[in-house]
Amino acid sequence: MNKVVKILVDALPYMQDYAKKIIVIKFGGHAMTSPQLAQDFARDVVLLKQCGINPVVVHGGGPQINEYLEKLHIKSEFIDGQRVTDLPTLLTAQMVLCGQINKQITQTIFNAGGQAMGLCGIDGQLVTVQKLTGKHDLGLVGEPTELNHEFFQFIINSPYIPVIAPIASDKQGQSYNVNADVMAGFIAGKGGAERLLMLSDVAGILNNNKELITELTSDRAKQLIKDGTINGGMIPKVDYCLNALQMGCRAAVVCDGRMEHVILLELLTKQGVGTLITQ
Amino acid sequence: MNKVVKILVDALPYMQDYAKKIIVIKFGGHAMTSPQLAQDFARDVVLLKQCGINPVVVHGGGPQINEYLEKLHIKSEFIDGQRVTDLPTLLTAQMVLCGQINKQITQTIFNAGGQAMGLCGIDGQLVTVQKLTGKHDLGLVGEPTELNHEFFQFIINSPYIPVIAPIASDKQGQSYNVNADVMAGFIAGKGGAERLLMLSDVAGILNNNKELITELTSDRAKQLIKDGTINGGMIPKVDYCLNALQMGCRAAVVCDGRMEHVILLELLTKQGVGTLITQ
Amino acid sequence: MNKVVKILVDALPYMQDYAKKIIVIKFGGHAMTSPQLAQDFARDVVLLKQCGINPVVVHGGGPQINEYLEKLHIKSEFIDGQRVTDLPTLLTAQMVLCGQINKQITQTIFNAGGQAMGLCGIDGQLVTVQKLTGKHDLGLVGEPTELNHEFFQFIINSPYIPVIAPIASDKQGQSYNVNADVMAGFIAGKGGAERLLMLSDVAGILNNNKELITELTSDRAKQLIKDGTINGGMIPKVDYCLNALQMGCRAAVVCDGRMEHVILLELLTKQGVGTLITQ
Amino acid sequence: MNKVVKILVDALPYMQDYAKKIIVIKFGGHAMTSPQLAQDFARDVVLLKQCGINPVVVHGGGPQINEYLEKLHIKSEFIDGQRVTDLPTLLTAQMVLCGQINKQITQTIFNAGGQAMGLCGIDGQLVTVQKLTGKHDLGLVGEPTELNHEFFQFIINSPYIPVIAPIASDKQGQSYNVNADVMAGFIAGKGGAERLLMLSDVAGILNNNKELITELTSDRAKQLIKDGTINGGMIPKVDYCLNALQMGCRAAVVCDGRMEHVILLELLTKQGVGTLITQ
Amino acid sequence: MNKVVKILVDALPYMQDYAKKIIVIKFGGHAMTSPQLAQDFARDVVLLKQCGINPVVVHGGGPQINEYLEKLHIKSEFIDGQRVTDLPTLLTAQMVLCGQINKQITQTIFNAGGQAMGLCGIDGQLVTVQKLTGKHDLGLVGEPTELNHEFFQFIINSPYIPVIAPIASDKQGQSYNVNADVMAGFIAGKGGAERLLMLSDVAGILNNNKELITELTSDRAKQLIKDGTINGGMIPKVDYCLNALQMGCRAAVVCDGRMEHVILLELLTKQGVGTLITQ
Amino acid sequence: MNKVVKILVDALPYMQDYAKKIIVIKFGGHAMTSPQLAQDFARDVVLLKQCGINPVVVHGGGPQINEYLEKLHIKSEFIDGQRVTDLPTLLTAQMVLCGQINKQITQTIFNAGGQAMGLCGIDGQLVTVQKLTGKHDLGLVGEPTELNHEFFQFIINSPYIPVIAPIASDKQGQSYNVNADVMAGFIAGKGGAERLLMLSDVAGILNNNKELITELTSDRAKQLIKDGTINGGMIPKVDYCLNALQMGCRAAVVCDGRMEHVILLELLTKQGVGTLITQ
Repeated sequence: MNKVVKILVDALPYMQDYAKKIIVIKFGGHAMTSPQLAQDFARDVVLLKQCGINPVVVHGGGPQINEYLEKLHIKSEFIDGQRVTDLPTLLTAQMVLCGQINKQITQTIFNAGGQAMGLCGIDGQLVTVQKLTGKHDLGLVGEPTELNHEFFQFIINSPYIPVIAPIASDKQGQSYNVNADVMAGFIAGKGGAERLLMLSDVAGILNNNKELITELTSDRAKQLIKDGTINGGMIPKVDYCLNALQMGCRAAVVCDGRMEHVILLELLTKQGVGTLITQ
Repeated sequence: MNKVVKILVDALPYMQDYAKKIIVIKFGGHAMTSPQLAQDFARDVVLLKQCGINPVVVHGGGPQINEYLEKLHIKSEFIDGQRVTDLPTLLTAQMVLCGQINKQITQTIFNAGGQAMGLCGIDGQLVTVQKLTGKHDLGLVGEPTELNHEFFQFIINSPYIPVIAPIASDKQGQSYNVNADVMAGFIAGKGGAERLLMLSDVAGILNNNKELITELTSDRAKQLIKDGTINGGMIPKVDYCLNALQMGCRAAVVCDGRMEHVILLELLTKQGVGTLITQ
Repeated sequence: MNKVVKILVDALPYMQDYAKKIIVIKFGGHAMTSPQLAQDFARDVVLLKQCGINPVVVHGGGPQINEYLEKLHIKSEFIDGQRVTDLPTLLTAQMVLCGQINKQITQTIFNAGGQAMGLCGIDGQLVTVQKLTGKHDLGLVGEPTELNHEFFQFIINSPYIPVIAPIASDKQGQSYNVNADVMAGFIAGKGGAERLLMLSDVAGILNNNKELITELTSDRAKQLIKDGTINGGMIPKVDYCLNALQMGCRAAVVCDGRMEHVILLELLTKQGVGTLITQ
Repeated sequence: MNKVVKILVDALPYMQDYAKKIIVIKFGGHAMTSPQLAQDFARDVVLLKQCGINPVVVHGGGPQINEYLEKLHIKSEFIDGQRVTDLPTLLTAQMVLCGQINKQITQTIFNAGGQAMGLCGIDGQLVTVQKLTGKHDLGLVGEPTELNHEFFQFIINSPYIPVIAPIASDKQGQSYNVNADVMAGFIAGKGGAERLLMLSDVAGILNNNKELITELTSDRAKQLIKDGTINGGMIPKVDYCLNALQMGCRAAVVCDGRMEHVILLELLTKQGVGTLITQ
Repeated sequence: MNKVVKILVDALPYMQDYAKKIIVIKFGGHAMTSPQLAQDFARDVVLLKQCGINPVVVHGGGPQINEYLEKLHIKSEFIDGQRVTDLPTLLTAQMVLCGQINKQITQTIFNAGGQAMGLCGIDGQLVTVQKLTGKHDLGLVGEPTELNHEFFQFIINSPYIPVIAPIASDKQGQSYNVNADVMAGFIAGKGGAERLLMLSDVAGILNNNKELITELTSDRAKQLIKDGTINGGMIPKVDYCLNALQMGCRAAVVCDGRMEHVILLELLTKQGVGTLITQ
Repeated sequence: MNKVVKILVDALPYMQDYAKKIIVIKFGGHAMTSPQLAQDFARDVVLLKQCGINPVVVHGGGPQINEYLEKLHIKSEFIDGQRVTDLPTLLTAQMVLCGQINKQITQTIFNAGGQAMGLCGIDGQLVTVQKLTGKHDLGLVGEPTELNHEFFQFIINSPYIPVIAPIASDKQGQSYNVNADVMAGFIAGKGGAERLLMLSDVAGILNNNKELITELTSDRAKQLIKDGTINGGMIPKVDYCLNALQMGCRAAVVCDGRMEHVILLELLTKQGVGTLITQ
């Protein structure tokens, strides 16, 4: 058989499985800074929407924020290695996230033939946050507490792909910066997503032999954290996934955003990529 | 780039162009008798529907009808080599078309993961015919005169793929057999289809060197008929296409139903296949 | 008072009681073979739809199938007097039921001023069956297991009267013949019909003095089967009615299809006809 | 055939012809004062609504108004034999029409199993009037000038049968009494009714031999007025019908409200009654 | 700040609180007989509807009924000081309420720029009553037993403000007069109103020092009845409010209908007026 | 009468006139930098939406952009006193407009009890621009050429107030800065707004005696430009208004954004403020 059509036809059962479902995609890291990967990403997302699937894009932007903090000579305080988000830092983050990256992704999706709306948690009060509490006071860092389901359904049921910057405000109207992984996980969980795709700069979760683990249950993931197999920066990422699952997301995937068209590979092909975490 | 995703992504602009449009597909000949090709066909049609395109299947069934006419010892009269459709012949055709082939295609589409409804021109009085007039009286052969737009929109806007047998009745309620190509062309024309795909047992329209002509205007097609380049059984087929264009179909394609997944190749890939006839 | 209007006005309370309700009518036997009775039947059904009631027609076709089995020299095996449905028998039944009788009823309804759609269990996968199990292997005889409620509502809420042939397929896509009474009872039961009308070639259920019993509870019906008052071919018919009631149909009527306009008499007049079986 | 069902079935084509159409019925005279006829009327109207037809009832109430004018010792001035409607007369008419007769008809329709809403021209500003101009100043007598199509469609498309009293106000908010025939004709005309039924206390329009004329064109009607065949109180009645036809009503019928179930006889039986006036 | 806009802006939170909610207003007494107050009332009601709130007007008309009873020389029997409603009394009440006052309020609302429909309990069988039972037989006085939720939602969701006269019928179709306060309370209760505003000719509920009590719980109200603080004609009024609360109304307000624009003052300003009774 | 309610009631006819209409408000200048005025503005806009009017906010942000250009040491080239928008300037403008000001206004509207969505021309491709052509090449300054009506209707018909930053892209996907007055005028014109409110830092258009002109026709406005009465920075502002009128906006108002609640004063009170320009 012709290779081209074989592939299309092979994708059909996947399209059908995901039809009308919500797929939350955390977009960031290398995938976002490479123009080619960003374009691939946009095409993937547009293809999903065209096939009757509902992608929701949540993006980060750490390096770009840092670049502007530097340009603006804003010096952040650090506690135990964690940056404290004071007001100038927050404003910079908000400008870069909502004003630059968010609109750029929206435009890239349009260039790929789709229709998108660039939003943040403040719009339609999509996500309400409270000040993150913890050992240290990290300033204006927010922890999501509510999803506005009415507004969420309004955008999901529209022909416009939502692109969401991780900025949101609390009940008093104060803006906060939110960790993009946290934002994505929260929306996937409360929004009842079929999948949360965490595009990261690693292949997925590795075992002690540095081999990719293709599938994990929640319990096994917790165990691997305990025994140190999952460690370093992967710990919080897996935690956000587990939280999403607990809130109502059906499965989460940690996958490699540096891989071309990783979204289609993961969702519409047999091979799959990265590590699938299920209940 | 990974080949698989490249192909999916390459298909996207085509999906977008055909989104919400009607594609009438004349299904018949070898494609229908080969179980593998029939299954490929079903998958193609389901994929189109999944991608937001509206396929309408019109099928024939000459050989199967002949088989039953023989089994039932029904001898038809012939005038100038054309079979006269008397009542026993019509009843046999109707049983084979509506009762056997039509439901088989419907089931095959279901097996491919889609949802279909097997209908004929009588259902919802979708197509009204009158007795075909001509040099000879060919009996109960009908010529379509009206499309019931209300019923047509009802099925197009439903999640069910219509599979239509070329049987219809006149205003007095008499059933007639209709040439499947004529039925497909009529529905494509009056229904304002974006494409009429004539799946046939040839590669398309050939020039004098037996090479495939990839694109033709209506005027050029008429000329090729006149100068004998288009000849034999291809003449009526092209005529039905031209009629469809005149009634409102945007373009017709004569293509090779024996080619695997010819529908996807034609609609969702750059290469295209067969001969495209445009206004 | 003028007789004509008295009758119309007397029908009003019945129309109101049945408004928006589903009435499943098993059509078959003599009523189907007499052109006059078939026309009466069609008018009755169209009148119901016009008055805001939702008729669903399920038809059989035993004699017509036998006629074609004979013409095609298909000899069936019999076990304990029950025909075994092998593949050629099934194909013949399917062609006759779906291709001939089904479309003829659809056309007759159109001639009576209504709009109908001829379907079978395969269309929209309306009814899924499994192979009937029992003492003997009767071949391709199906037992309904699922009603596709989404598709059922789609046709009930349309202006088109569904005419359903008792052919359906199992989850593997194999076609089966279904007893028409079983099919009607299943659809009435799972579809929550207000009435199941079993048009038969007898007056209804008779008592030991050969007098018509006008009303029966389920319990009383079971008792009459036990004590032999209900016997012979009436036993399975009553059983199908009882099954329908148990699945959710509100009441079933065994009535005489040979009586002109028996449907209107039963539903829209005081007299009623046949035997009403209630929970 | 059973007489009962024959009549029901004979009514079917008429039901289909009038389906979704508007039938404006001027209800008054003897039909309204006889409890039996009023009940018959209500049943007819409910039957129409049940069959998918849209009846609109407009009623008068002259005798009942006179009775109350007398009880209240209100003496009206007369000019050339025409009563002048002063304010006390208007208030009495409004109370009797809107408060007594209107609600009584509404209730009678409910008792007949239907659902109705009693309204007048003031409600939803359904009909706006201006002071009737002419040779004499007849006081608070109104001439309809506008139909509020939005409100009219709102009630027509509801399950509630509108019962309309001939009281309406002008743009300044002053109430006026309107001749009930005029009100019915105006609503039938502007509302695009299929039929205007003028229930009166005569058999219809008679020729010089006192025989009923069953059908008339507008032109012929005008001629009969000119030559005196149509005379006396029948002249304005015919004039209101002709106006209705000119404004957009398809046909008007002057018929005998004293005949039991005259509406069903006229609309749903072959015989028809009264005089049909067509364009 | 400019006073004008300050007031508008101050009203905003109240508008938002009441958005899409139902406000039942008992209109009567002095407010109804003063043309100026009636006009103010109409404007208030139109303003509410314009701001997305759903006012429902229920009106009385005792003095106007008495005036007509006198004019018509109808002498009523009295038992223990309570009038017995015989048939002539009922008919008079119905004519005055439904034919005069109801249409006048409807017109006044139209003059104020709104759209209204004048109805009574009979229309759409909005309210069904039974004969009021008690120590004495008071004749045709009704006690509401059922609200037709389907019809109620139909009018609430329309752009037309319902104006309801306290006349309704029982299941046999007999008309009854209903106390307007009872009617308002019943509709507010069963209709799930946010507020029941009892416009009366007193400032509200007074304490023993003749000072206005601004807020009361149900329990406290019952206590004040017991200890005689609430007495005379205020007792039944408070009882109707308590009944409304128990049936589902969120809060009731007894306020002074003689105060200009009392509805807006109560609903859209901080000050509030009258006595608020809550669960 | 109570002053409070008088004002509310006086506002009613204005609310009714503007019901369901679109009001485009150019928000900028002093009104935007004063927290109190910004809060007033938000309340006004929320009040409009609550009253069934459709406000669309378009904002500028010149001073804030300048502040950041300075902080980021971006030196712009100037031609004839006009700043040339190079890429770093554009990016800064976009970040400040879309990331800071836009979200801040969105939040302020939420704080005032409303629901808003912060967007720019890129979102849903609401506005498409082309490079502004003129005597000088001003770099990435865009001129609107198309309004996406489908997306515009989508947001207008939602419960969310659109807040639009004057950033848009061309057909190639390049971002451009757009003059906020131009953006507001274009949306008001193409969107068929009832009013374009240009909030500015002057009282309106003044005559030669420095007195406010309250109303002007288009022709008169052009004349005043010619004779120098309108001069300086007011010339382009009036030009944008005239363009809006020509494209389909019904009237434009140049008014004083420094006045508290100027929007309500202009729209919902008799006095009006500023200069009204009509066709």
